[in-house]
Amino acid sequence: MKFSLSHIPDIRFGADEIDNLAGHAASLGAERAAIVMDSFLAASGLAARVQGMLAAEGITSEVYSDFAGEPKLKHLREATAVASGADLVIGIGGGSALDIAKIVACTAASGEDAMHYALAANPLPKNALKKIMIPTTAGTGSETSATNIFAGPEGKKLWIWGAETKADLVILDPALTVSLPASLTAWCGMDAFIHAFEASTNRNAHAAGKVFGHEAMRIIAANLAEAVGNPSNLDARGKVLLGSCYAGVAIDNCGTAIAHNISHAMAGLAPIHHGLATALGFEVSLPWLAQADTADLNAAAAVLGLTRASEIPDFVTRLMDACGIRRAIPAAFNSFTVADLANEMRAPENQPMRRSTIRDVNDADLDTFATAIMTMQKEA
Amino acid sequence: MKFSLSHIPDIRFGADEIDNLAGHAASLGAERAAIVMDSFLAASGLAARVQGMLAAEGITSEVYSDFAGEPKLKHLREATAVASGADLVIGIGGGSALDIAKIVACTAASGEDAMHYALAANPLPKNALKKIMIPTTAGTGSETSATNIFAGPEGKKLWIWGAETKADLVILDPALTVSLPASLTAWCGMDAFIHAFEASTNRNAHAAGKVFGHEAMRIIAANLAEAVGNPSNLDARGKVLLGSCYAGVAIDNCGTAIAHNISHAMAGLAPIHHGLATALGFEVSLPWLAQADTADLNAAAAVLGLTRASEIPDFVTRLMDACGIRRAIPAAFNSFTVADLANEMRAPENQPMRRSTIRDVNDADLDTFATAIMTMQKEA
Repeated sequence: MKFSLSHIPDIRFGADEIDNLAGHAASLGAERAAIVMDSFLAASGLAARVQGMLAAEGITSEVYSDFAGEPKLKHLREATAVASGADLVIGIGGGSALDIAKIVACTAASGEDAMHYALAANPLPKNALKKIMIPTTAGTGSETSATNIFAGPEGKKLWIWGAETKADLVILDPALTVSLPASLTAWCGMDAFIHAFEASTNRNAHAAGKVFGHEAMRIIAANLAEAVGNPSNLDARGKVLLGSCYAGVAIDNCGTAIAHNISHAMAGLAPIHHGLATALGFEVSLPWLAQADTADLNAAAAVLGLTRASEIPDFVTRLMDACGIRRAIPAAFNSFTVADLANEMRAPENQPMRRSTIRDVNDADLDTFATAIMTMQKEA
Repeated sequence: MKFSLSHIPDIRFGADEIDNLAGHAASLGAERAAIVMDSFLAASGLAARVQGMLAAEGITSEVYSDFAGEPKLKHLREATAVASGADLVIGIGGGSALDIAKIVACTAASGEDAMHYALAANPLPKNALKKIMIPTTAGTGSETSATNIFAGPEGKKLWIWGAETKADLVILDPALTVSLPASLTAWCGMDAFIHAFEASTNRNAHAAGKVFGHEAMRIIAANLAEAVGNPSNLDARGKVLLGSCYAGVAIDNCGTAIAHNISHAMAGLAPIHHGLATALGFEVSLPWLAQADTADLNAAAAVLGLTRASEIPDFVTRLMDACGIRRAIPAAFNSFTVADLANEMRAPENQPMRRSTIRDVNDADLDTFATAIMTMQKEA
């Protein structure tokens, strides 16, 4: 046994824990904060509320919320300008807001452009601004990971990776997640479940990662359908949020596998929600994966209350049904063929997820998965 | 549900992982390191080996190893002088070496005496030296905790507590633990098991702490007797070491309970190994504690493969038997009475552990535990 567990930030969990944000910011020594927040959250009054709390503690702040969907280089540049001169970056929102905030804490500190750090072109600065991350969706796990995704100048997906981008403090406040629509709760929650599952069963899985991955699987599987069906159930919301955070720790250490290969390949063809794409990719590849019947797959089965790995696919199908997930892809996929998708699955940037899969993935397997996805019902 | 999880350092686990120490030190930016190491380890050649590795990476170093047993103020002052001008402190050894190293990383940075920080008299400096902690016993969990114990000028036990003393990096190398005598392996391992158990079942127990506490209980219970009986079994050694580290996370967040009240009270009377005292205190109080029959106690039972809390006392007695732990106290206790021990249990500094116990501990309960301890066989 040999492994590396990357550090885990301070975590504060509780409904309305955001009310203690200013105190946490002060204890990090903050005097001037940049807030990166999803635009609909900012418009809901949360930006004003947060700025008011900070001001009462003597901390000045500026808000950047002029983005939607996946972060683009332009957003990183604009947010860096807003964060210039700040000593703390606060990210509030989904994975996009958090990824922008985590990158900007580095670029604002060094004055370098985000492209300077993309794809590990240069080492990240050691003096990044302090970072508080507050996820309002339970899915990406960005609050506990060192990975940050954005679209480069030509629209190509790029990443900035490094411990320097990790949060100093994570606030998990289930009350911030109750307004998320049911379909997004389901898609994001499945994404988190799959993070936990893939990190616990792929070629990089290890003992410490599994502690987090198993706990995440256990609590998400037990609470996701309730969080979808009864959006105001703060207990269920909180458990899914906590599970997503643990799953973030699991992927931060052990990465993902074939479902994320399929998901990223789909995103390469046409816009689709990452959580939905991942859930669809997971369901179509899982019966094949479960045949590997490894010790880790059987351990995952036991965590889910099953007796063997071969029972996992049915379990996941029931979970997705209970969460009301329609197996359908956007109409935009009508313009593409099975071969187009299989090609994306073979693209160089998607090979790490293919290679980390516990079963060897040959080209015929990819064709099978691509066929299953592309023959799915299309949204009107 | 509401909780706070304190940050967890980077962890590197593996046999001979210490061989990568210099690289880790360099990646923390170190140029000049102070090494705090148990004297018998230093004499074994480990000090020279570590200094050689560091020198090969261009890092100069000095060793402080002039201490044995529990740290005294004198040791902290001497180690601070050695660490003056260093940018990294490396602690290698049992809890004493690690506690000294963690405190000295603060006092060497600020130039203040350790007494300046004792019992939270003043805030710790924000610019502590970088810290790498390498436990060579599996017990205290000091490598992942913010608590540090030493004897003050009058011999009284004092503590320095704060996130500023926590490690940046922990190296868990089971190969460093194989030379530990069987009795110490058993006593330290039981201490770690009890950390995990008390943190998971006391009044401060919470969901995130239990993730670590439960995993620690599981792997220590499954591997401790083997680590004691077959000292060179690196797999069992490693699992107990990892369990002790997780148990450190659990107490760092949720603290201990009545077994540690008894243990600290015993140490107040006469010298006794902390792990042994804690194991004895645990066994005599556990049947009483298990009667509380709480959800957390039953969850702990399930983790141990039992069906109910009332089975835990027998399980622990069998575990202690399997580890060859003699139920006997040092002859020095002959000078004291049951009332003396009960008095120590009522001392102000031991009340936090009494109050955190999930069952109310009345004075008659303390008398019962004190009687059970003091009527035990005495070592010749």
